[in-house]
Amino acid sequence: MATQAAFLATLPRLARPGRDSAGVAPARVGVAAAGVAKAGADAVRAGAAVAGRPKAVARGVRCRASLIEPDGGRLVDLVAPEEGGRRAALRREAAALPHRVRLGRVEKEWVHVLSEGWASPLRGFMREHEFLQALHFNAIRGEDGRMVNMSVPIVLTVGDAQRRAIQADGATRVVLVDDHDRPVAVLSDIEIYKHNKEERIARTWGTTAPGLPYVEEAITNADDWLIGGDLEVIEPIKYNDGLDQYRLSPAQLREEFARRNADAVFAFQLRNPVHNGHALLMTDTRRRLLKMGYKNPVLLLHPLGGFTKADDVPLSWRMRQHEKVLEEGVLNPESTVVAIFPSPMHYAGPTEVQWHAKARINAGANFYIVGRDPAGMSHPIEKRDLYDADHGKKVLSMAPGLERLNILPFKVAAYDTKQKKMDFFDPSRKDDFLFISGTKMRTLAKNRESPPDGFMCPGGWKVLVEYYDSLVPSEGNSKLREPVAA
Amino acid sequence: MATQAAFLATLPRLARPGRDSAGVAPARVGVAAAGVAKAGADAVRAGAAVAGRPKAVARGVRCRASLIEPDGGRLVDLVAPEEGGRRAALRREAAALPHRVRLGRVEKEWVHVLSEGWASPLRGFMREHEFLQALHFNAIRGEDGRMVNMSVPIVLTVGDAQRRAIQADGATRVVLVDDHDRPVAVLSDIEIYKHNKEERIARTWGTTAPGLPYVEEAITNADDWLIGGDLEVIEPIKYNDGLDQYRLSPAQLREEFARRNADAVFAFQLRNPVHNGHALLMTDTRRRLLKMGYKNPVLLLHPLGGFTKADDVPLSWRMRQHEKVLEEGVLNPESTVVAIFPSPMHYAGPTEVQWHAKARINAGANFYIVGRDPAGMSHPIEKRDLYDADHGKKVLSMAPGLERLNILPFKVAAYDTKQKKMDFFDPSRKDDFLFISGTKMRTLAKNRESPPDGFMCPGGWKVLVEYYDSLVPSEGNSKLREPVAA
Repeated sequence: MATQAAFLATLPRLARPGRDSAGVAPARVGVAAAGVAKAGADAVRAGAAVAGRPKAVARGVRCRASLIEPDGGRLVDLVAPEEGGRRAALRREAAALPHRVRLGRVEKEWVHVLSEGWASPLRGFMREHEFLQALHFNAIRGEDGRMVNMSVPIVLTVGDAQRRAIQADGATRVVLVDDHDRPVAVLSDIEIYKHNKEERIARTWGTTAPGLPYVEEAITNADDWLIGGDLEVIEPIKYNDGLDQYRLSPAQLREEFARRNADAVFAFQLRNPVHNGHALLMTDTRRRLLKMGYKNPVLLLHPLGGFTKADDVPLSWRMRQHEKVLEEGVLNPESTVVAIFPSPMHYAGPTEVQWHAKARINAGANFYIVGRDPAGMSHPIEKRDLYDADHGKKVLSMAPGLERLNILPFKVAAYDTKQKKMDFFDPSRKDDFLFISGTKMRTLAKNRESPPDGFMCPGGWKVLVEYYDSLVPSEGNSKLREPVAA
Repeated sequence: MATQAAFLATLPRLARPGRDSAGVAPARVGVAAAGVAKAGADAVRAGAAVAGRPKAVARGVRCRASLIEPDGGRLVDLVAPEEGGRRAALRREAAALPHRVRLGRVEKEWVHVLSEGWASPLRGFMREHEFLQALHFNAIRGEDGRMVNMSVPIVLTVGDAQRRAIQADGATRVVLVDDHDRPVAVLSDIEIYKHNKEERIARTWGTTAPGLPYVEEAITNADDWLIGGDLEVIEPIKYNDGLDQYRLSPAQLREEFARRNADAVFAFQLRNPVHNGHALLMTDTRRRLLKMGYKNPVLLLHPLGGFTKADDVPLSWRMRQHEKVLEEGVLNPESTVVAIFPSPMHYAGPTEVQWHAKARINAGANFYIVGRDPAGMSHPIEKRDLYDADHGKKVLSMAPGLERLNILPFKVAAYDTKQKKMDFFDPSRKDDFLFISGTKMRTLAKNRESPPDGFMCPGGWKVLVEYYDSLVPSEGNSKLREPVAA
């Protein structure tokens, strides 16, 4: 279809190892919002003179020196290379390994996340020392002694019977299989330890109230043991849902940013439809970065693609909506890269926003936009938001391991009834502004009503209306909770 | 009484500002258990050549360069000095300040803790940025950019009506008063922020189950706002309970270690009676430190003196028991300093053990002994321990800001029925060993039975029996939970 083709034209090309041109001269950073301004230092340029570059670049590795360095100094890539027969050998070994651990939906998403290095320098599911550091410190000390941020546990569960069988055999490797029992990866040098669910939940979410979506999906009924180890994935994770071309790895994103000569990359995490308030703040961020002296700031519009709660708009509909936003010129395709972030959503507020930011460092972003109540939701049983709306950006700005990232807290945008468009809220004429909540937006779309002119581009709104239309038959069954605006 | 006098003879003398001799040459540290061995680097000696020393030493400050440096580089002292009329001026100001915040029992203990610098570099009750860092990272970034460990929130609560009154006045200072309305301290540059009790509890304890002693004492019924600021205490906090002479400040302890020419200080936190298993491990630690090359390792036997749960042995009885342990020669008074650690007890396991260790760095300890399930207790509503018994020492060994501290995990001691004494458990002849739990010990003492010979010195045991005898009349009323061994 035409719209899809137009959207695809805005997509970055995939990685092209061997290219060596990259960013332009580092800009001087004046004031970089709440973050520590070190962008200039990170923007070491990869020039055209390949001969003069360090060996890594001359060999054509995908990680560009012009972009912010990944955590741990090197992007982790856990997919067995086809070259040298490694992939075939791993596939044969996986078929023969006696212990097969079944991956749940969320666990498979984590295999994807780990395999592409979003969690660099993590090389597999967490062993206990990593799990404890994530829970207690939201950061893990690397081999070089430095702390890298890691705020959410990335763990794999295993049942008691299987644990006993593995330990009785003294096995050090297990194969991870999907729900059709097909081998996906091998986990080596395994370590099995207790899964204290209550403690994990309390320390990650700051509550143990029933009804936390990720907890219900992946923890409450999960097994009582955790199995950590080094991961080697047999082949790149694909979903075959028509969206795989948007699932760019951190290496592919870095390649694209380099291709575009980006000298600043600002990431915008979202899991909701894009309205013109979002667009305003993204274009305003680019304006601010240009004013700081950057020549070519590129936006990474990065919808989350993994598990989300039942009442969030599903990924495929969100991608259709984002497509319209670019097609109708609300965002400039020239300076925007749209891709899917494969992580599952925790709705863990200040804890999770660190993960969202850290993963984007690994994808090459040195600026991160953070709004009100990031990764927040309503308290599952009390009539209030689960997190203080300001804690996310505060915690983010102080988090260990994120010192290199520039945090850009954003101003509140609302609908200006005088100007008939979304604009930054001006408290001096507050009665002119209309705040359109997620609940309000949903109600309008469900009732096929139109929002005020200028709230969202018409094509994007139409997608939303279609989505809620598609829900009507099963509405009675779906357990819809109040959605929260991005 | 004679025993008390004998005990007092073992006590350190108080601070003697102006003395300048200190430790002996730094020892080489071979293997320092699980910790990072940097003791040598910390043991910069303060020699006799005062003229050649930095100005601070020449001026006679109490913090010795020979001991491990306090967090933040300088011991915080928040007591208004009498000299220069500051104390009198503060007293006058406190009497006149319109806003009076009442200190609860635990809050007053925190005033004590803060005033003496146990929480250095913290200079008062936490403001929100400190509170959030403690909750999320167990560490706070100092002004120099370095992380200092700070795992438990040190906060003061204030009610909504008072908050509104303070904010309506635009007040920046409040006076903190005791339960007789007597001014204790002034809090300046105040910041008032929300007290999200559920989140605080979940992130500190890893559970929100009802029945956590500190939570019931100081959080559940506490006010809904927190007030942070810089603390200035009118005069040293005293309890007038006959035990104040044991309440040595970090500065006084440092002075005492210097006086004894300690070249290593190893701290033992406890809140239970000392049995011969504890004593064994303390003497064994000294032996190990001597073997490492230290010439004069000194033990800081440091019972916790603040709030404890109802079924713990009260401080006064514990001090009488510890007194017997020294009097009867189980520990060597020559190499032991006994003092009271004024902090309230959280029973927050791996989170709290960091606080216990960090505070002892500030008191000059560079080695910290950690046992099984430190600061742990039974789960308040489930039939299991609240924390994994090994997590405490693991978390401690990885905690940000504690890199300078040498962690000494201890071997399990048990009663050897063949040798008729406490000894390190030998799994090769495990049937010879008897584990005497806290519950077992309590049952024996309550029944006036004797434990096996060599379990505890007779005088110490007699104190315990007397304590449980003293309880009998009110036994029916007391809510005794299963005690947990240190």
